[in-house]
Amino acid sequence: MENKLRLFNSLSRKKEDFKPLTDGHVGMYVCGPTVYGDPHLGHARPGITFDIVFRYLQHIGYKVRYVRNITDVGHLENDADHGEDKIAKKARLEELEPMEIVQYYTNRYHAFMNALNVLPPSIEPHASGHIIEQMEIIDKIFENGYAYEADGSVYFDVEKYNKKHPYGILSGRNIEEMLANTRELDGQDEKRKPYDFALWKKAAPEHIMRWKSKWSDGFPGWHLECSAMGAKYLGETFDIHGGGMDLLFPHHESEIAQSMAANEKMPVNYWMHNNMITINGQKMGKSLGNFITLEEFFTGNHDMLEQAYSPMTIRFFILQAHYRGTVDFSNEALQGAGKAYERLIKAFGRLDDINPAEAGDLDMEKLRNSCYDAMNDDFNTPILIAHLFDAVKFINAAADGKTTMSDEQKNALQNIRKDFIVDILGLDLETSETVGGSGLNDVMDILLDVRKKLKEEKNYAMSDFIRDELSAKGVTIKDTKDGTSWEM
Amino acid sequence: MENKLRLFNSLSRKKEDFKPLTDGHVGMYVCGPTVYGDPHLGHARPGITFDIVFRYLQHIGYKVRYVRNITDVGHLENDADHGEDKIAKKARLEELEPMEIVQYYTNRYHAFMNALNVLPPSIEPHASGHIIEQMEIIDKIFENGYAYEADGSVYFDVEKYNKKHPYGILSGRNIEEMLANTRELDGQDEKRKPYDFALWKKAAPEHIMRWKSKWSDGFPGWHLECSAMGAKYLGETFDIHGGGMDLLFPHHESEIAQSMAANEKMPVNYWMHNNMITINGQKMGKSLGNFITLEEFFTGNHDMLEQAYSPMTIRFFILQAHYRGTVDFSNEALQGAGKAYERLIKAFGRLDDINPAEAGDLDMEKLRNSCYDAMNDDFNTPILIAHLFDAVKFINAAADGKTTMSDEQKNALQNIRKDFIVDILGLDLETSETVGGSGLNDVMDILLDVRKKLKEEKNYAMSDFIRDELSAKGVTIKDTKDGTSWEM
Repeated sequence: MENKLRLFNSLSRKKEDFKPLTDGHVGMYVCGPTVYGDPHLGHARPGITFDIVFRYLQHIGYKVRYVRNITDVGHLENDADHGEDKIAKKARLEELEPMEIVQYYTNRYHAFMNALNVLPPSIEPHASGHIIEQMEIIDKIFENGYAYEADGSVYFDVEKYNKKHPYGILSGRNIEEMLANTRELDGQDEKRKPYDFALWKKAAPEHIMRWKSKWSDGFPGWHLECSAMGAKYLGETFDIHGGGMDLLFPHHESEIAQSMAANEKMPVNYWMHNNMITINGQKMGKSLGNFITLEEFFTGNHDMLEQAYSPMTIRFFILQAHYRGTVDFSNEALQGAGKAYERLIKAFGRLDDINPAEAGDLDMEKLRNSCYDAMNDDFNTPILIAHLFDAVKFINAAADGKTTMSDEQKNALQNIRKDFIVDILGLDLETSETVGGSGLNDVMDILLDVRKKLKEEKNYAMSDFIRDELSAKGVTIKDTKDGTSWEM
Repeated sequence: MENKLRLFNSLSRKKEDFKPLTDGHVGMYVCGPTVYGDPHLGHARPGITFDIVFRYLQHIGYKVRYVRNITDVGHLENDADHGEDKIAKKARLEELEPMEIVQYYTNRYHAFMNALNVLPPSIEPHASGHIIEQMEIIDKIFENGYAYEADGSVYFDVEKYNKKHPYGILSGRNIEEMLANTRELDGQDEKRKPYDFALWKKAAPEHIMRWKSKWSDGFPGWHLECSAMGAKYLGETFDIHGGGMDLLFPHHESEIAQSMAANEKMPVNYWMHNNMITINGQKMGKSLGNFITLEEFFTGNHDMLEQAYSPMTIRFFILQAHYRGTVDFSNEALQGAGKAYERLIKAFGRLDDINPAEAGDLDMEKLRNSCYDAMNDDFNTPILIAHLFDAVKFINAAADGKTTMSDEQKNALQNIRKDFIVDILGLDLETSETVGGSGLNDVMDILLDVRKKLKEEKNYAMSDFIRDELSAKGVTIKDTKDGTSWEM
């Protein structure tokens, strides 16, 4: 098929035609989790956003190498590159080996991404596993004159870099502003300027995550790992780099600077950033009491939650907004999403039982093209979902005998279900409300058959007993001219 | 509780009392998979064997740090350290980045271990993520005079080492024999002796997995990763090192030599080795056509398999043999294991419905002690299972009204179920044959209730119809004086 994909490039601040470096192939790097805590909503949104990009690029025929890293070292406690390594701090508090914490939370992250139907990336490299590659970049930056050493630590010389290349090309900031807006913090005296950032940090004696280097026993600066692993697995310049908007500055800005300083090449052609989430209009934060983990969402076990929300409800809710817009979580909004999701899945579930007749009033080619147009327009999932609801209306009308559907229309809708609902949006065709194994279906068939026979025998007391008992267990049965359907 | 655990130490070739280095803590390292192919039976046995060790040590109160590595580099194609790196070879064949293959098969390995109820280890380090640590050991071995360089590769000098420390301490081999039994292979001329092994290999030009080092662009020898990661996460000497018997020589023997040469310390106090598996009496091998992956076992999709075998059947079958004995897989043996497993789970499932009366004839304290004795005797799971079947007999007799069971006995059996079946053996309390959500149970209750009422109304045609329809769907119902029970 013709590829008309356009995407918003944070670097140019406009939508651009997507053209990969290598025909038929896409290299994509996305900043993954820092694994020192339980996965929460802040992980769900980029996970799902770039899962959609991954799925759609593959759907339209690209072979995608998708790299999403695990940050298990070097993520300092504040953006000023100062303070303890977050993981090492937790490890000491819990008296654990840091890698034990890393493993525990990495496993949890995988389990929850899996529940959200987020596909695993092609490669999931660990920062701690790429220390050599990070050292090699520092060597190159040194050789090119953009790094300086101070007491065993190595810093990136932003001012010098900025004389040749604009530091701020991605974020639109400039270093004069940065200087004006920065106040000096204790312990930063090693740095020549406050906006310089660490490439290598000498480890304090109590710091337990450390490697030997020519500069000191220490650990790499946070920004470096993505430059190293992106280049290693995707090349010095690759197609797409994604992440949350909060990473745009200083993290991604510094990645660009590091790569330019090392290789004189822009590392990335298309920068994509998902917007943030809020909870009842507020930023999520531990101090605000509105920090909700994914486990809490899935179990409903949090003071702010009125009920449990299934992984598919969370996924659908996130997809109902465009990835560049904010998303506000509230019980009301989630309940609405849950209902809409159920309506969508149920209608498409009725499709197979429809007896084809004359063609009804929905242009299938137009619908399918509209779905692609939505996705090709910077992955506009809310528009895609709106088109799917046009199909919902049509299917329900046909199933209720209010309109007719041709065999071609039925086939076209079955293909749309497979392509857009399952493959591209990554939604389950079974809602959490309609689960149940084949055993259950078999036994329900028998029970409904018995009820029908009892009615034929005019044993209404017994047939009503069946209906009432089912109702008491949450199973509703509905008699139609085609037989009896049921739902839990 | 008093700890009377004894385990067979491959190093001393006898059972020894287990005494950890640090009170209350155990460090355990187990050789994990080389991730260049789909998980098969050869992965299931060590996975389950050391899962039992991990579970039991925790059950008796130890805090266990369990490290199981992922070999993603440096596993050469034959034990003579010669030939292409297995992973890199596959990568070139499939035109993939090696780490893409590593990621794919690592994900598969995790999924299948999870299906087998094998707990994730505390830390799962990758060989490729610990190149620096491996280089540091080579430096130490060089300093101590047990390594030599040849054309960018570094080899371990077995002969020199053997003058001071016995090379063969674990395997019982001696180097004169080794020399007599080795024929010269092409390309081994770099090595002074055929039994020398690589610590670092210079990469051939086409070799894509490589790192810079002071010796050459290359990659570490296979034996080195376990020495490096064991020492890093567990210390230079730790408690237990496990793996399959096939790894005892040369892999584990060489690990000992490396650690002694680097640190003058024995790396491990207790070496444990699980025995091998055979299929219909033959070694499993791709050329023999009897190479069966776990997926093939779980789906039954292999010419040699008469049916699918559930993960719990495989697990139970492996646990029915002691880990130091061989296990022969055949359809007959697996079907037998499946039935025994079902009998076990079903009997313990009947326990909760038994109405306590007078004490019956089974000494609970003795039973519980016997279960512990079995596990304390080198993790003797077949003996443990035999004791559990004593309980099965008693529970079934009590449930069938042929004997009585006191409240204390019932509680004791419920505790045995929780401790030994669930926590220690890691078995599911639901067999694959009795699956079905609560929805199914609810609907079956209604259907059986309707049948009872129909019989009261003397509508035998309809009550028989229910029984026959259920039977056609594989559900058998059984009328007893306490009501009607059913099974699928």
